[in-house]
Amino acid sequence: MSTPSARRTSGLFIAFEGGDGAGKSTQAGLLATALQQRGLEVLQTREPGGTVIGEKLRSLVLDHGQGDIDPRTEALIFAASRAAHVHQAILPALERGAVVVCDRYIDSSVAYQGAGRGLGTDSVLEINLWAVEGLRPDLTVLLDVEPVEGRGRRMQNGAEDRLESEPDLFHSLIRGAFLERAAADPAQYLVLPARTPVADLAATILKAVDEHLT
Amino acid sequence: MSTPSARRTSGLFIAFEGGDGAGKSTQAGLLATALQQRGLEVLQTREPGGTVIGEKLRSLVLDHGQGDIDPRTEALIFAASRAAHVHQAILPALERGAVVVCDRYIDSSVAYQGAGRGLGTDSVLEINLWAVEGLRPDLTVLLDVEPVEGRGRRMQNGAEDRLESEPDLFHSLIRGAFLERAAADPAQYLVLPARTPVADLAATILKAVDEHLT
Repeated sequence: MSTPSARRTSGLFIAFEGGDGAGKSTQAGLLATALQQRGLEVLQTREPGGTVIGEKLRSLVLDHGQGDIDPRTEALIFAASRAAHVHQAILPALERGAVVVCDRYIDSSVAYQGAGRGLGTDSVLEINLWAVEGLRPDLTVLLDVEPVEGRGRRMQNGAEDRLESEPDLFHSLIRGAFLERAAADPAQYLVLPARTPVADLAATILKAVDEHLT
Repeated sequence: MSTPSARRTSGLFIAFEGGDGAGKSTQAGLLATALQQRGLEVLQTREPGGTVIGEKLRSLVLDHGQGDIDPRTEALIFAASRAAHVHQAILPALERGAVVVCDRYIDSSVAYQGAGRGLGTDSVLEINLWAVEGLRPDLTVLLDVEPVEGRGRRMQNGAEDRLESEPDLFHSLIRGAFLERAAADPAQYLVLPARTPVADLAATILKAVDEHLT
């Protein structure tokens, strides 16, 4: 399959990646707020979801009770949701010159389905790059979290969903895949320990984003 | 992306392909009935759909009113539906030794999304082979229909759905892609003019299937 070339746009695309319980949503929210306070247009969004059809696809996968969803079906549903998200929400925002702050992107599929479910990281990456016509983030913030630490954090948030209830080995595979993605393209990644105090993390992330804005 | 190797099973897998209005459902039904009357276990099914999650995905794409579904989202939803269909219904039936009669399979995606929507036949084929872990039909019956003829037949069935309401050029591209797939692997295809009388078609198809059963 030919990998499509990346589209160039005028906005800035920031993705947050990391295992469950890493604090991605918190940091994405803090970053979006800080940028909005400067008068920038910010699209804060999340995957899977972010569009009407994406939310429907998300609920198909994440809710309990769909029966045995095999890993390839799951991976393709996430890729479909991402394609809709990019074409309907992210690309239009970037073309307007907005900053897009996205909670999870392609690396989450590579980590969860490619490594965690054993589908192969290369295949999952390739399908997802096809889905989004090659659109990559300008900066990916990887919040690196120890699996056991993440589980402790998740438990504070109540019931785990279908993916989160997998055992710790699954989370170790995921963490390894995230770190591998970052190591393959260091210039595009900011890897930070998730246990860093929230305010310190936010400051470091904002500084890195500033370098892309100037 | 590495293409997975085809699984070998003990049953027989027959797919019906062709443009809209080719008479696939009619012929699939006649074949299934003829085989059942011989005491064979037959799974008669259709794509997209054939499973609970597949039917939900099918309705997401085919119903009007979902907004602008971009072609890649559409293609990935069909691939997800197919992955579920193969893993939950087709492979288990083949493993039991059943005959599977399927109305549409991978070639429909290659033709409609790859050629019709311009996504590229190679990419769509590769993603779908990944989705089904390389499972190909033992025999594909391609009912070849002229685009104008197909439109006439569809009109008799009432309102067209979203895909069927595309103009005739779209159907020409689809027809060309189906014929190309058949030409690339003649031994696996039975190409028949859809305008042949129904009973004659049914007899020819049953004869070809018999050759695979003996």
